[in-house]
Amino acid sequence: MALIFVTSNQHKFSEVNELARRRGVEIVHYKWRYTEIQSDDLEEIARASVMEVCTKLGKPCFVEDAGLFVNALNGFPGPYSNYVFRTIGNPGIIKLMAGFNDRSAEFRSAVAYCEPGKEPMVFVGRVKGKMAEKARGTGGFGFDPIFVPCEGNGRTFAEMTVSEKNLFSHRARAVDKFLNWFIEVKG
Amino acid sequence: MALIFVTSNQHKFSEVNELARRRGVEIVHYKWRYTEIQSDDLEEIARASVMEVCTKLGKPCFVEDAGLFVNALNGFPGPYSNYVFRTIGNPGIIKLMAGFNDRSAEFRSAVAYCEPGKEPMVFVGRVKGKMAEKARGTGGFGFDPIFVPCEGNGRTFAEMTVSEKNLFSHRARAVDKFLNWFIEVKG
Repeated sequence: MALIFVTSNQHKFSEVNELARRRGVEIVHYKWRYTEIQSDDLEEIARASVMEVCTKLGKPCFVEDAGLFVNALNGFPGPYSNYVFRTIGNPGIIKLMAGFNDRSAEFRSAVAYCEPGKEPMVFVGRVKGKMAEKARGTGGFGFDPIFVPCEGNGRTFAEMTVSEKNLFSHRARAVDKFLNWFIEVKG
Repeated sequence: MALIFVTSNQHKFSEVNELARRRGVEIVHYKWRYTEIQSDDLEEIARASVMEVCTKLGKPCFVEDAGLFVNALNGFPGPYSNYVFRTIGNPGIIKLMAGFNDRSAEFRSAVAYCEPGKEPMVFVGRVKGKMAEKARGTGGFGFDPIFVPCEGNGRTFAEMTVSEKNLFSHRARAVDKFLNWFIEVKG
């Protein structure tokens, strides 16, 4: 059975599609922009989104929401990473980090799957890392050039290929949990 | 007829209540926290919020959403001013402004009123000003200590009383438009 992934973000689709292909799952891309709610909690946002999208679509589908949570900034930009990236961008985050010794941060991803008339399932993935001193790399998207995951030999996410990022990214971890469940229950 | 204002923010209620009393309109405070949508457009957020709240309440009511839009920061923090204030706060905005000659900004307010089964009405107010070099004053709330309105003789909103702020604030302008309409149509 092909899985419907609803996202307006081509980069997200590419990452998720690579993970699914490895597992032999076919993904269909519905390139929709849907309304998200405001919340400090990614899981709550993803749950609300997938319920709305699934109701409109009338078919099983999943969405993914992600955010960068910087400890010295009390979790900012968190669930509003997309807006913050579009306005102050990587230079803004680098400026905000000046003077902080604690450069620790975490990328989080919430994958929410829903079938019509049922409660959504949510799967969460996290990756710990540090904020880079300056932007490096041209791969990935969003804050990838300024995030150095603990397991990446000092490289930013933007200095990796999709396959490398998928070895330990927040999104890969959430998607893998989802696919494990999906293949076991629906496969 | 008493008007129901739904907000979890006591400061907002005090400002709006002062404006309404001047006009002889009675305001009832429903201290609810409701779900807001994510959008770059305050009017769209306020419209969606009031429709949700009005449907739950089953009575005419209004809500207000506001944001600080800084030109050098491409409109940041905009509709996410509440979250940004709670995370990076005034020190974060001051840090981000370093090095920018253009310190111009605008506070915007959207008041949305709805009656059950009807389309909401939205009233917008704006005030232009400049970002202060440092926080000043203890009045108001949120980013008031770092915003200097053009008409305020160089003082920040936080250096004014509620009555003074209400002479030319974004919120006062939106609320006055709303009250003008309300008194004319419903009074």
